[in-house]
Amino acid sequence: MDIVADIGGTNARFACYQPDQTGSETGTVSHLTRYACADFPSMADALERYCTAHQITPNRMSLAVAGPVDGQMVNFTNNQWSFVKQEIKSRFQLSSLTIINDFTAQALVPPYLNRQGVTVVREGTPYPDTAVLVLGAGTGLGFAAILPAGGGWCPLETEGGNGLLALRDTDPEGLSDFLRSKEEVVSFESCLSGRGLEYLYQFVAQDKPPLTARQIAETANDNQQARAAIILFFNLLANFIANGILSTGARQGVYISGGIAPKLKAYLPESQFLQRLSEHGAYSDYVGQVPLFLIDEEQAEKAGLLGAGLAMTNPYLAHRRL
Amino acid sequence: MDIVADIGGTNARFACYQPDQTGSETGTVSHLTRYACADFPSMADALERYCTAHQITPNRMSLAVAGPVDGQMVNFTNNQWSFVKQEIKSRFQLSSLTIINDFTAQALVPPYLNRQGVTVVREGTPYPDTAVLVLGAGTGLGFAAILPAGGGWCPLETEGGNGLLALRDTDPEGLSDFLRSKEEVVSFESCLSGRGLEYLYQFVAQDKPPLTARQIAETANDNQQARAAIILFFNLLANFIANGILSTGARQGVYISGGIAPKLKAYLPESQFLQRLSEHGAYSDYVGQVPLFLIDEEQAEKAGLLGAGLAMTNPYLAHRRL
Repeated sequence: MDIVADIGGTNARFACYQPDQTGSETGTVSHLTRYACADFPSMADALERYCTAHQITPNRMSLAVAGPVDGQMVNFTNNQWSFVKQEIKSRFQLSSLTIINDFTAQALVPPYLNRQGVTVVREGTPYPDTAVLVLGAGTGLGFAAILPAGGGWCPLETEGGNGLLALRDTDPEGLSDFLRSKEEVVSFESCLSGRGLEYLYQFVAQDKPPLTARQIAETANDNQQARAAIILFFNLLANFIANGILSTGARQGVYISGGIAPKLKAYLPESQFLQRLSEHGAYSDYVGQVPLFLIDEEQAEKAGLLGAGLAMTNPYLAHRRL
Repeated sequence: MDIVADIGGTNARFACYQPDQTGSETGTVSHLTRYACADFPSMADALERYCTAHQITPNRMSLAVAGPVDGQMVNFTNNQWSFVKQEIKSRFQLSSLTIINDFTAQALVPPYLNRQGVTVVREGTPYPDTAVLVLGAGTGLGFAAILPAGGGWCPLETEGGNGLLALRDTDPEGLSDFLRSKEEVVSFESCLSGRGLEYLYQFVAQDKPPLTARQIAETANDNQQARAAIILFFNLLANFIANGILSTGARQGVYISGGIAPKLKAYLPESQFLQRLSEHGAYSDYVGQVPLFLIDEEQAEKAGLLGAGLAMTNPYLAHRRL
């Protein structure tokens, strides 16, 4: 049995994976189980629990994890877990172990997505020979792309969410300074993540007690300042996406994934999101014609697992397999 | 005879290209001739002049141009030229015409570079399975990468230089506002280009008459403010490179090309360039270990032409050939 996992900063999702025999679709996942990372001292313990609970003896395993995955040792960026690749392979007696970044996994899925689980934010005009970008805010800010290559897809493994924050002149004055009081390096992730949304709310509502990201989302209907924080979130997301399109040349499409954006999508039309993604000086046409999609929450949850499954056989990810 | 060209906003370079028969090196260029774009009403006229001057009947042609190259019509970003691809192919009766972005061409060359024409800015530790980034300031700010793919190199065609400018807290206050008075969209190119260096000087020396980029470079030895503008240039270049590494995952190496950086390189050690590229919060290791190189001026001038030559047979650029 093949096991796949999508492990973020907060949640770890495990599933069984059955590859598609035709190669024309993703495989299928079953026995999807979600654990809170904080409930387990290590990833191996959570994996052990999953296998025991479902009485599974794993054969191949593919783990999509939130953070860089070079070298033998993997440290999660947004939680306390870490592991040594070879130790996992030995402990579970695996025939192969694939370890990729969680957004590399997300990026492998768009060619196979079920359109019913996707909201079209802008139709646009796709350039088929260019990259497809996938990004998303959750505990952190994921960013990855795939490039059409020889009939297949070559993944671009990145940590683009951790680039320095870039603002437009219509962004509020004082925002940079405020964020600098919170974080050592003010990156896009400093705004576009769970904690980022909380910072944005604190910036907007400096006279009020802080709210959690969940509270901000849940109270936005009645709380003007929560709403303002969410609108600011979408404006900054547009800056991030514009820079992402330009720096990867991704004009085949941008897919917004991750846990946060689908929860807030009702407020997107109140922001300057689409306007910012169509006004970029001499590059307005370049940025302004890219199709934009939002992967709905249920499908986003599965996408990381399906991508982990696809990674087991992607020819351009051989260096990620042990 | 194969003709290659590297056409920026200011200069157009033409040469004859002889492919390498082994495929293990670039080909060779000869009859390199440089024209000022402003001296010709169109690119076709400059090409005509080149062919006549050297009594060449072109067979294949590969043109690396500064700007996006999708569609039939190509508009240069930083000069008044434009052309229709099919018209060029017909007018010169070519067996094939390849049109790529000038930095896509630059990006194809690093695997074959002559180390004597390269300054090692930082040795670093390369990750061989990741992208190689090539960027450079000239009339504009070029940015492209190549990804190892199936024994060859898959180019990442981008316009990353036109992303929104991102600043650090150690960058001077008021810089964003100053640049916003100059440009519709404040991009990295607004600082890291010929005009960008001129803006930086005007920002630093607001009490003095403006200088051209050339004057800034030539007077920096005695002119404190020209020197300060150049140091600011390198600091902002480090921001750009850090974001570039993160957004493309390029940890095999970064090559700085283009006309401007080699001319200013004596002042690089006075800037925070290396420090900024080793301090990036949780991503300090990620950014801080990437090998950094500067392509010297003479080799940079040839690199675009060699890359245009390589593009004629790169399997991942089939969509750029007519």
